Amino acid sequence: MLASASASAQAVRVAEGRRASLAPGAAALRAPRAAAAQQQQHAAAASRRSAARRVSAEAAATESPPVPGAAHTNGGGTRVMIIGGDGYCGWATALHLSARGYNVQIVDNLVRRNYDLQLGLDTLTPIASAHDRVRKWGEVSGKHIDLQVGDICDWEFLSQTFQAFKPDAVVHFGEQRSAPYSMIDRQHAVYTQSNNVLGTINVLYAIKEFNPDCHMVKLGTMGEYGTPNIDIEEGYITITHNGRTDTLPYPKQAGSFYHLSKVHDSHNMHFAARAWKIPITDLNQGVVYGVRTEETMADRALINRYDYDGIFGTALNRFVVQAAVGHPLTVYGKGGQTRGFLDIRDTVRCIQIAIDNPPARGEQMRVFNQFTEQFSVNDLARIVTEEGKKLGLDVETISIPNPRVEAEEHYYNAKCSKLQELGLVPHLLQGSMIDSLLEFALEYKERVRPELIKPAVDWKKSGTAVATMSAAVAK
Amino acid sequence: MLASASASAQAVRVAEGRRASLAPGAAALRAPRAAAAQQQQHAAAASRRSAARRVSAEAAATESPPVPGAAHTNGGGTRVMIIGGDGYCGWATALHLSARGYNVQIVDNLVRRNYDLQLGLDTLTPIASAHDRVRKWGEVSGKHIDLQVGDICDWEFLSQTFQAFKPDAVVHFGEQRSAPYSMIDRQHAVYTQSNNVLGTINVLYAIKEFNPDCHMVKLGTMGEYGTPNIDIEEGYITITHNGRTDTLPYPKQAGSFYHLSKVHDSHNMHFAARAWKIPITDLNQGVVYGVRTEETMADRALINRYDYDGIFGTALNRFVVQAAVGHPLTVYGKGGQTRGFLDIRDTVRCIQIAIDNPPARGEQMRVFNQFTEQFSVNDLARIVTEEGKKLGLDVETISIPNPRVEAEEHYYNAKCSKLQELGLVPHLLQGSMIDSLLEFALEYKERVRPELIKPAVDWKKSGTAVATMSAAVAK
Repeated sequence: MLASASASAQAVRVAEGRRASLAPGAAALRAPRAAAAQQQQHAAAASRRSAARRVSAEAAATESPPVPGAAHTNGGGTRVMIIGGDGYCGWATALHLSARGYNVQIVDNLVRRNYDLQLGLDTLTPIASAHDRVRKWGEVSGKHIDLQVGDICDWEFLSQTFQAFKPDAVVHFGEQRSAPYSMIDRQHAVYTQSNNVLGTINVLYAIKEFNPDCHMVKLGTMGEYGTPNIDIEEGYITITHNGRTDTLPYPKQAGSFYHLSKVHDSHNMHFAARAWKIPITDLNQGVVYGVRTEETMADRALINRYDYDGIFGTALNRFVVQAAVGHPLTVYGKGGQTRGFLDIRDTVRCIQIAIDNPPARGEQMRVFNQFTEQFSVNDLARIVTEEGKKLGLDVETISIPNPRVEAEEHYYNAKCSKLQELGLVPHLLQGSMIDSLLEFALEYKERVRPELIKPAVDWKKSGTAVATMSAAVAK
Repeated sequence: MLASASASAQAVRVAEGRRASLAPGAAALRAPRAAAAQQQQHAAAASRRSAARRVSAEAAATESPPVPGAAHTNGGGTRVMIIGGDGYCGWATALHLSARGYNVQIVDNLVRRNYDLQLGLDTLTPIASAHDRVRKWGEVSGKHIDLQVGDICDWEFLSQTFQAFKPDAVVHFGEQRSAPYSMIDRQHAVYTQSNNVLGTINVLYAIKEFNPDCHMVKLGTMGEYGTPNIDIEEGYITITHNGRTDTLPYPKQAGSFYHLSKVHDSHNMHFAARAWKIPITDLNQGVVYGVRTEETMADRALINRYDYDGIFGTALNRFVVQAAVGHPLTVYGKGGQTRGFLDIRDTVRCIQIAIDNPPARGEQMRVFNQFTEQFSVNDLARIVTEEGKKLGLDVETISIPNPRVEAEEHYYNAKCSKLQELGLVPHLLQGSMIDSLLEFALEYKERVRPELIKPAVDWKKSGTAVATMSAAVAK
């Protein structure tokens, strides 16, 4: 106990030191390339960040144990298996929960890193290996995260891992999550649906068989709903038809084989919750942005990934990188495509809220829409332009042919109140733009590879010829 | 040409001879075991059937070429690939279309026969091998059906077969179609969704790549809808919500991993029709009954399968066999479970109607509900009891614990008008009971294995222990 407490205290000192040194280091990296106006803006932003950190540090000082994030709810040793815990959302979540006293295990086959290898892509931010990350987190926080490298589609691996760790909750991020990747060609479509749907069935069976009280928290996507011409509710809709009324699963109209795989998951889980009375929360997440969470910023080796390429990058990440390197923002088509968005700091908080509020066994599968704001692509371009200007960046916008098949002008009004009713306090995009996005794009702009940004996959051209090479946008 | 016409004429003579001899042969098989009252009923039924055959023969005599089924629409050489053409619905459809001038290819991996081997099951009616069936059909009809044995999940096989045959329409029956089979254990759940969903993706890509005008006619199931408390529409429902209106895919609540696999197919196809403008018809079929179609009765070697076991048999088939062998009809639970039903003679006609009326390219995926009547399980038990009495059978009914998770008393009102608007004239159950079901059960009652009838798979017990042995009901 003493040794552990000592290690923890030392780790905190290390963490605090790292955090204090981060901003200057970043400023140093930026300085040679930034205009005077940019430097002034950065200094102002850094000042705001420092103030925020002081508040955070003071809050942390009143709590015990004083590790990153300790100012929040204590997980009380709840055992949480995070499948896909080496990915963008999974890594931030693993650290967030670990910092708050949850007993975290990461299960990951590291295939996200392999996709980058296959296609010649790379994260803007240089990330450490899964093993180094977990090791560093132990040093920084004094908290142990168990790392199990393996594939949940491999039942032998999953069943043994599940039985050994005995999770109280499973957070399932472990899916191929790129729409363009799923549309590269037939092989990638089949892989995506096979990997995602069958892996999820395995998780359902593991819970059913080994611990039916274990709460499954599954990441779905707002993209499951498509763009209906009526309001999007949270998972279910009450329909009155020919004089009768029922509340039914909200109709799904997904726009890629990836999004469809999550529709399939949702249907399979809805059934499992009914047939086996497994507690399940399906989180239909919007587009996540941001690199910064308290924990991933605690050390350089803990930094999260930032994808801006044509396969794994989102429109927002792409625009931010384009603004940073002086390239026009590339809007696909008319730019009226509207979606839900949230900050990565809200993702990790949503997962914690879901874990802390499990549905009762026998309750219908619970569905939350996990986003905080809606924006159109044109909205995003406008915000990036405005915020870029504050940093002295001269940002232009152009329209390029839309590689996807989607409505470019449509009604969109999705509900997202349930998580906020359970305590989520959203970070808003406008406030996070400089702090969590443009800052990183500028800091790492030397690593930007402009040739990765263009659309690499066309929905209408997805075919049976193996197209990995043409999708390898670095060619 | 002459040789072909001659062969055709000879084949017709063979066919006519076979048909004429069938009923007496069947009567001879039944006679030793039938009570006097049953014999009288059979004689009356046989007389009705003979009258029907005369009418059919006269109609055929006015048409050319005079082969089984020639009194109907001529397919005009339309090239139809029937995936799963060795199965129950697929075989009947292949012959129906071949007889009517469609150029038919059967693509089948024969796995349905393998399921029986695995689990120790068997069809009531002794079916010939796929190769013998096709060969015999050539003799009987003078029509060639191309048989390609292979797996559509094997892309190399499917792509080459598709490109060689160049179908104008693909009828896709090629899926694992038993709900209990999918619920045997984790392996069978994963197999069912993998086989069904990935195979269908391959078919979509084959059409998209090699002939995007090819019409995909896909067999779904009424079970995709579950049992909502509002009327079930055909594929789509118009919803007015918060003052706005849209027509969306009808919400799905399937009750097994099998039924879910078809929900997934429907979503994938809906997307493919939108993204790639492939003409697709999704047929949400009800429970099919009956052995008799004109073509499958043309020769003993052409007879269709009749499944009554606990894995592949339906409630109706089970009841009919139980009535024939003097076993009480086993109703699962309260027996209020209500579903749509249709005669196999209507299945084959529905497929033909779908092929003859393709949607336009770019049209939304077309969905028809393919059934003709609704019955509850209790309705079925009552009808079998009544019809059994007419044959002198003393039929009792008992309730046994329901192995499935499903509502046993519920509202059910599903629409099925679209196929009838296109020309379907339904055969009704009450009229087909003796002619197409009890007749066969009595004819082949020596082959009935009562130990196969009991439920072999419990939805709540579906687990991760490999359960093939416990599902092998013949133990």
